[in-house]
Amino acid sequence: MELIDYIESKQDDHLNELKEFLRIPSVSTKTEHKPDIGKAAHWVAEKLRAAGLDNVAVTPTKMHPLVYAESLHAPGKPTILFYGHYDVQPAEPLDLWTSPAFEPVVRNGNLFGRGTADDKGQVHIHIKALEALQRVSGKLPVNVKVIIEGEEEVGSVNLWDFVRQNRARLKADALVVSDTSMLAKGVPSITYGLRGLNYYQIEITGPSQDLHSGVFGGAVPNPITVLAETIAKLHSKSFRVAIPGFYDDVAALSRQERKALNSLPWKEKEFRKTVGAPALCGEKGYSIVEQLWVRPTLELNGIWGGYTGEGAKTVIPSKAWAKLSTRLVPNQEPAKIANLVERHIRKILPKAVTAKFELLSTGKPWVASYSHPIFQKAIQALESGFGKKAVFIREGGSIPFVTQMHDTFKVPCVLLGFGLPDENAHAPDEHIALANYFGGIKSVALFYEQLSTL
Amino acid sequence: MELIDYIESKQDDHLNELKEFLRIPSVSTKTEHKPDIGKAAHWVAEKLRAAGLDNVAVTPTKMHPLVYAESLHAPGKPTILFYGHYDVQPAEPLDLWTSPAFEPVVRNGNLFGRGTADDKGQVHIHIKALEALQRVSGKLPVNVKVIIEGEEEVGSVNLWDFVRQNRARLKADALVVSDTSMLAKGVPSITYGLRGLNYYQIEITGPSQDLHSGVFGGAVPNPITVLAETIAKLHSKSFRVAIPGFYDDVAALSRQERKALNSLPWKEKEFRKTVGAPALCGEKGYSIVEQLWVRPTLELNGIWGGYTGEGAKTVIPSKAWAKLSTRLVPNQEPAKIANLVERHIRKILPKAVTAKFELLSTGKPWVASYSHPIFQKAIQALESGFGKKAVFIREGGSIPFVTQMHDTFKVPCVLLGFGLPDENAHAPDEHIALANYFGGIKSVALFYEQLSTL
Repeated sequence: MELIDYIESKQDDHLNELKEFLRIPSVSTKTEHKPDIGKAAHWVAEKLRAAGLDNVAVTPTKMHPLVYAESLHAPGKPTILFYGHYDVQPAEPLDLWTSPAFEPVVRNGNLFGRGTADDKGQVHIHIKALEALQRVSGKLPVNVKVIIEGEEEVGSVNLWDFVRQNRARLKADALVVSDTSMLAKGVPSITYGLRGLNYYQIEITGPSQDLHSGVFGGAVPNPITVLAETIAKLHSKSFRVAIPGFYDDVAALSRQERKALNSLPWKEKEFRKTVGAPALCGEKGYSIVEQLWVRPTLELNGIWGGYTGEGAKTVIPSKAWAKLSTRLVPNQEPAKIANLVERHIRKILPKAVTAKFELLSTGKPWVASYSHPIFQKAIQALESGFGKKAVFIREGGSIPFVTQMHDTFKVPCVLLGFGLPDENAHAPDEHIALANYFGGIKSVALFYEQLSTL
Repeated sequence: MELIDYIESKQDDHLNELKEFLRIPSVSTKTEHKPDIGKAAHWVAEKLRAAGLDNVAVTPTKMHPLVYAESLHAPGKPTILFYGHYDVQPAEPLDLWTSPAFEPVVRNGNLFGRGTADDKGQVHIHIKALEALQRVSGKLPVNVKVIIEGEEEVGSVNLWDFVRQNRARLKADALVVSDTSMLAKGVPSITYGLRGLNYYQIEITGPSQDLHSGVFGGAVPNPITVLAETIAKLHSKSFRVAIPGFYDDVAALSRQERKALNSLPWKEKEFRKTVGAPALCGEKGYSIVEQLWVRPTLELNGIWGGYTGEGAKTVIPSKAWAKLSTRLVPNQEPAKIANLVERHIRKILPKAVTAKFELLSTGKPWVASYSHPIFQKAIQALESGFGKKAVFIREGGSIPFVTQMHDTFKVPCVLLGFGLPDENAHAPDEHIALANYFGGIKSVALFYEQLSTL
């Protein structure tokens, strides 16, 4: 196994190079990080060039640039389109990180830093796998097209324009994405279902200005109270979403799939430990795996209003805000759900306040049959790369691009995830297990190699 | 009326001197203004000396100095203790001021600037009234003790220590405070009731860390949702506080007092205009005046948790917080109410979260019988000074010092307020009506004069 030997010999180099990538604070939600976003895009382009890809281009969009590259030197072989993202979530709250978010460091076999798991570490796995194939064989075994975008964490705003404008060029036999997790440590996984996501923001206005809570308290609408009372009406006591029509289009799970999902080596104990709350709570009548993967949700993601500093300020604020999101499952339509949510919220709001309702982003759910032979190749590659049995899973998160690509190109999408559910993507102390990072490079290289006989 | 003629002849001087006082940015919450605080204290001391008071002293405390002065040359006459404060609220947000906060200017008969109404303008009224009496009669008609503190806007932290240490010296027959408002323009007022205040902070913890709302959403306790559901249970549909026992000790209003309060020339239209909300809402069965002055309340003053920045972040936060306060009325005991609030909140919280409950500050309600003859003297003085009918009112805000002084010295407290409810104390464009400033000096001078026959 010359390929595997080569990859193993390069582990130190790979890790050092990944750290370099992680040190660029490419936070896509914040305008102050605009220069870092540019820096990260060019870093990715340079590494793709070094891996031997052609036509490497950093393409500007209305927001953050997108990196494209290709290698089309395997006539008669399949063409694979790989997608990933170089942007990361904000690191806040900074004081909860054990070591600084943008100063990557290894502790107990894990590499810590923002973007390690989501998604810089996983993007790097593919770049290094392609480079290894190129170095060992002098060429790639398949045709490869690569898109690495910089707007995933803000809803992939401009990605789709790029895809539509380059539809012919992007044509491929399969889409490969590494932005998901393995089921658990030592269980390499392929994800065949994702939830969709609508993200909303509500602004409630009561008084036209902040008021003294002594002088005015007791007679005027308090937007914080109204917002809380509104949120309280969005779930029933059995943790179901209490918005009329919300579950109308939810596809029932087959008995077979339900059984398969509930038989996976998924560890409830580990999950409870990761969550760390005194108890769990979810929709009655469904297992936790089902609650997480195949049931839709409504979650509050942020709330603010009034005085939030130290000590006391006796104010009734003019406004209060909340950010919330609905995770969607087949066959819920994001636009229809957004309407139901807004209509319901407006219906339950008292007349004493006004409200602004915004849909910040939207994305369809996705589920695929894994009968196509490419999934067998992927399972074999994972099992060889990790030396462990691999499984098919679904995931609660959302990758809108997967759904769009699947709908547009009608090709199989293979989601090879090398993160772990407790690696704090989007939270302080994000990390990736080094075993999965190194195992990932081997598996992906083997996968591309085996695809030549697809 | 030599006294009144004298005061009227000095209006330009008074106004110019007040502007000088207002130009000192004596913001007590900000350490950067420490020198200005000192400057303001010494300015007050100098003017008290100029008004003929003795033993004028700027006394340092652990935070900001306190100014004391006295005049005890009226043997056999009553002794009055006047209290006010020279510190002011921060001026932020600066861009909402029409003219700079610390560059006082007259527009449309109002003097604009931070501290005009709260409380420098009102303190200056007393200093100038005492000076006029001294100039016209060569002596004061009563004995006077004056405390002007510099920590009112930060909770009068060290005032009470000073009072306890100087209890014998501060003994007086009545306390006079000018730090409240008149009912409306042209309606001089004496406040005989204030609400008490308990201020709380709650912290709800669900997961032990922030979690990805896609990967974990649907199965774990969301502290924002739990906080909202808790807040929603604190009021009934008729806007009553839904905490068992909360109203148990509320003193019933006599038919007579209820009638008197509801007959006041209080303008609902003006109130609605100031609030600016599409509608008002308050406890059913009570008039707005009653809701504001004689009914206890529970108001949310701040809320925060999760992602509150620009755009979207798909997080289930570990924690969410709220600040809330209860305004109390006679005979509610602050300590008992704090217990009821905490017990109820803990009872309704689900087992899937933990909670921290803090009482940040506490203060008793106050109400005085205005049968003491000093109130008749005050009403007469206001009516002579303004040429308008004066009224007895209550107020929804809290001045803990009044309650403490009343409880300690068991003397009547006369609250002569020369502000107006819409003069933006604590907000941009704070101002005082010149008619009330000049009318205030005349009324206060007449009040001190008439007290000699008490």
